[in-house]
Amino acid sequence: MKLPGLIDVHVHLREPGATHKEDFLSGTKAALAGGVTTVLAMPNTQPPLADGSSLHKAVSAGQEKALCDYGLYLGGSMENPDLLPEIADQSVGLKLYLDATYGPLLLEDTIHWRKLFESWPRSRPIVAHAEGKTLAALLYIAFMYDRHIHICHVSTREEICLIKSAKEKGLPVTCEVTPHHLFLSKEDIPALGKRGKSEVRPRLASRDDQRALWDHLEVIDCFATDHAPHTLAEKEGEDPPPGFPGLETALPLFLNAVHEGRLSMEDVITRMYTNPRAVFGLPEQQETWIEVDLKRGYEIRAADQYSKCGWTPFEGWTGLGCVERVVLRGEEVFRNGEILTTAGGGRNIAPSLTYQA
Amino acid sequence: MKLPGLIDVHVHLREPGATHKEDFLSGTKAALAGGVTTVLAMPNTQPPLADGSSLHKAVSAGQEKALCDYGLYLGGSMENPDLLPEIADQSVGLKLYLDATYGPLLLEDTIHWRKLFESWPRSRPIVAHAEGKTLAALLYIAFMYDRHIHICHVSTREEICLIKSAKEKGLPVTCEVTPHHLFLSKEDIPALGKRGKSEVRPRLASRDDQRALWDHLEVIDCFATDHAPHTLAEKEGEDPPPGFPGLETALPLFLNAVHEGRLSMEDVITRMYTNPRAVFGLPEQQETWIEVDLKRGYEIRAADQYSKCGWTPFEGWTGLGCVERVVLRGEEVFRNGEILTTAGGGRNIAPSLTYQA
Repeated sequence: MKLPGLIDVHVHLREPGATHKEDFLSGTKAALAGGVTTVLAMPNTQPPLADGSSLHKAVSAGQEKALCDYGLYLGGSMENPDLLPEIADQSVGLKLYLDATYGPLLLEDTIHWRKLFESWPRSRPIVAHAEGKTLAALLYIAFMYDRHIHICHVSTREEICLIKSAKEKGLPVTCEVTPHHLFLSKEDIPALGKRGKSEVRPRLASRDDQRALWDHLEVIDCFATDHAPHTLAEKEGEDPPPGFPGLETALPLFLNAVHEGRLSMEDVITRMYTNPRAVFGLPEQQETWIEVDLKRGYEIRAADQYSKCGWTPFEGWTGLGCVERVVLRGEEVFRNGEILTTAGGGRNIAPSLTYQA
Repeated sequence: MKLPGLIDVHVHLREPGATHKEDFLSGTKAALAGGVTTVLAMPNTQPPLADGSSLHKAVSAGQEKALCDYGLYLGGSMENPDLLPEIADQSVGLKLYLDATYGPLLLEDTIHWRKLFESWPRSRPIVAHAEGKTLAALLYIAFMYDRHIHICHVSTREEICLIKSAKEKGLPVTCEVTPHHLFLSKEDIPALGKRGKSEVRPRLASRDDQRALWDHLEVIDCFATDHAPHTLAEKEGEDPPPGFPGLETALPLFLNAVHEGRLSMEDVITRMYTNPRAVFGLPEQQETWIEVDLKRGYEIRAADQYSKCGWTPFEGWTGLGCVERVVLRGEEVFRNGEILTTAGGGRNIAPSLTYQA
């Protein structure tokens, strides 16, 4: 079955600064293996993508190594509101870190949020990590500035209900949910192994929260993996960093949900292609598609993954629904587990964004 | 000089449950000594005023002992949304504790906030402790429900700016600021003595925050003391509870500010009488006034206070502007430091509120 090349609006490629976890080559291989032909990469790298020179480092790495199309987010900080307007169009959006997670870009004071809303141009979206009441606060600030906001990795009943009622009120808000918040909950923590392997932000939530996400599918605009690779040694070590890899497991898990009747194929395509394109104003990829087989079984094994991280929270999960082939701009780039392309075939999509707030 | 009997919309009378700190008699004596003829008392008592039986305890204590008029807030909790509609009219409003302070009524999940917004009748106001981004979150929820909200003890630049812009946007929001956040800052902590004596919620803020409050006087609807008595032994002991007494020091401090030209008398009357009445829909007190002398000096001394708490953060402060006489419904109840009335002359104003959201 042919599907459009998928779009993952939330991945961490760890370059610059932590290429032992992932880089543009390994991360975009993982993307292709997962049926994803466009990734939007987060700015909490080392250094964070918060000015022209750090952005340039990531752009160069992408140009050299990326196998699929990509865009880069800039990160908002207390220091950079004045710098951003000039470089915004080299990015696909502004990421605001409003709750604690991995990296240094946390913004706690709404005065700083507001400065960023004031400086960031309407030609690119603002996306945010904002949990619980922080989400309500952000919805307020977005309302004050009459501005679209995209909410990353919604994970709780509180959050999905806030977004539902915001949409009902007519506010321009969109959101994404991760596969791990749909397929895992706190109850799975013991089975995930050593404590660090269940650490992720937002945290795995309750069964009730998980149910609320499934019950509000119509409120979820995008499925996005928040692919956040850390090595197995890091995850099993002292002070493990939060984050799960996700690029190579998302579509198989969703296809299995289609197989089980929990989702329709339309649900998946809408949230991994149609809506991501519409929300972010992404360009069409000519002659690009993927081929999947809903009846072909899979077993998820970290050993088969292209990601450098070397583990997955879904180790050993089996199901029906497999990515068989990926064609990017007429070129077959992946077939039956094999990457068939070499570095550099991906394009930076920043210049072709058609977003307008 | 004659002024109207003042209204303090935010006091803690500690009854029921902690009458060694304060009770309706000592607290309303302190009110009269401060030129205040109406106090609105907070519900974080022991037990908290969160249902009919606890409210009844406080109503009885007020009936027996109060020397000035009073109203009681009910506290919102996770358990009581369904109970509140029936008893709301016996109160002057619903208090939401949305950030940590003294007492057990903290609400962290906006789902609970929303249940309370849905159940609480529009015949009584909602007031809230909401600092920083919690305030932005609350403004969002109030906006969602198209509802007036009164913000307690605003203390930072962030907060006063959020309220300013909410008002500019036309949202029905009002707020109060305490004397201690206007006259003290973090810089005063060393001089306040043992650490516990500077503990208050919201915390004493920076000089910049303090300046922002003065710079945005036009945004401040009410001055309210947040009179929060704890005994000197408690404040100097282990794990000191947060809170400052304020009823007996507020007006002298404001009169001194008038004397110094930092405020006009109109500024004070507006924020301690006109606006509190208008915001909460409070009844007029017939034949009630206070007399002050702007040229008469004072020295603030805990030893002279009627509050049971036995200390004040303003110990030894001197200035010009003194409360000389208080007349309540034609009866002289205070003159030159002496309380001239006996228990029970105050009225519960809850039944006569004319508020409509």
